[in-house]
Amino acid sequence: MSNKEVQGFTIFFTGLSGSGKSTTSELLEAKLERSLHRPVTVLDGDEVRTHLSAELGFSKEGRDTNIRRIGYVASLITKHGGIAICAPIAPYAETRREVRDMVEQYGGFVEVHMATSLEECERRDVKGLYAKARAGEIEHFTGISDPYEEPENPELRIETEGMTPEQSCEMVVATLQKLGFC
Amino acid sequence: MSNKEVQGFTIFFTGLSGSGKSTTSELLEAKLERSLHRPVTVLDGDEVRTHLSAELGFSKEGRDTNIRRIGYVASLITKHGGIAICAPIAPYAETRREVRDMVEQYGGFVEVHMATSLEECERRDVKGLYAKARAGEIEHFTGISDPYEEPENPELRIETEGMTPEQSCEMVVATLQKLGFC
Repeated sequence: MSNKEVQGFTIFFTGLSGSGKSTTSELLEAKLERSLHRPVTVLDGDEVRTHLSAELGFSKEGRDTNIRRIGYVASLITKHGGIAICAPIAPYAETRREVRDMVEQYGGFVEVHMATSLEECERRDVKGLYAKARAGEIEHFTGISDPYEEPENPELRIETEGMTPEQSCEMVVATLQKLGFC
Repeated sequence: MSNKEVQGFTIFFTGLSGSGKSTTSELLEAKLERSLHRPVTVLDGDEVRTHLSAELGFSKEGRDTNIRRIGYVASLITKHGGIAICAPIAPYAETRREVRDMVEQYGGFVEVHMATSLEECERRDVKGLYAKARAGEIEHFTGISDPYEEPENPELRIETEGMTPEQSCEMVVATLQKLGFC
């Protein structure tokens, strides 16, 4: 298919826990379904773990396997002309590259870095996870006891501080329009 | 969408090892891509294990989890208007019912029972697995040391003995036409 408007594509959010990936994904899902009249599937890190990776832990290997599974599913949705939104933490650059390669076989890949600082994520601490990680109750916590490798060339980087989730969502839509996906 | 011709659907083969699921799936994939000009994805038991379930064994629990993951992926392909062909052994009726329910939320589900007898599968023994299972070298082998629950009401049951894979494929296509999917 030469027309990008009917081509499948994947929007891949990456960023720390609490950076706004899930909230922005949900807004974007509703917005795209309404404006494009096409189904959209959100592959949230936690949801995919339930369906595909219940047995995996949060070690580097466990995380990488989970991200590859998300990528495999996103690539199949893209192959069939669908729209997938992925919202895992995805801390490792090499794994994100693998997912990009899987998806780009079939359609578009739009990486969105939610560049919320660790300080801000920890200040929000919506789920109380940072407090637990600081107390040593959670191992392998990205940003605290595990690394986060910042994307070097994402299609979009959002400095979310001082922005509403609606504004972040609009920035993604503007990027999709610029790239010819909607 | 009211028009079944552009609706997503899943063809779900079930049957013993060596019953002809993979061969028929591959023929069907080529045939549907050629005639419908739409992408088709085959979710073979072994391939899906590689991508989604590398760590699972062949106990009832391991098998059920693998089949549910195949069903989850098939349901998403169906949701996005795609065509999925699943070809696991899927020995348990309850798990097949769960997959049907997942897929039918979004589109059509066509269960095809490859009703090749155990004797015939064992006589063919293409991969030499039955010999190993009889020798006790493989545990949990469906038909030998593990049960296979025959589907009671599949959309199609193929008595493959004396038939070519091409003829089996034609029977599936005829069923899809009868149900309005192509």
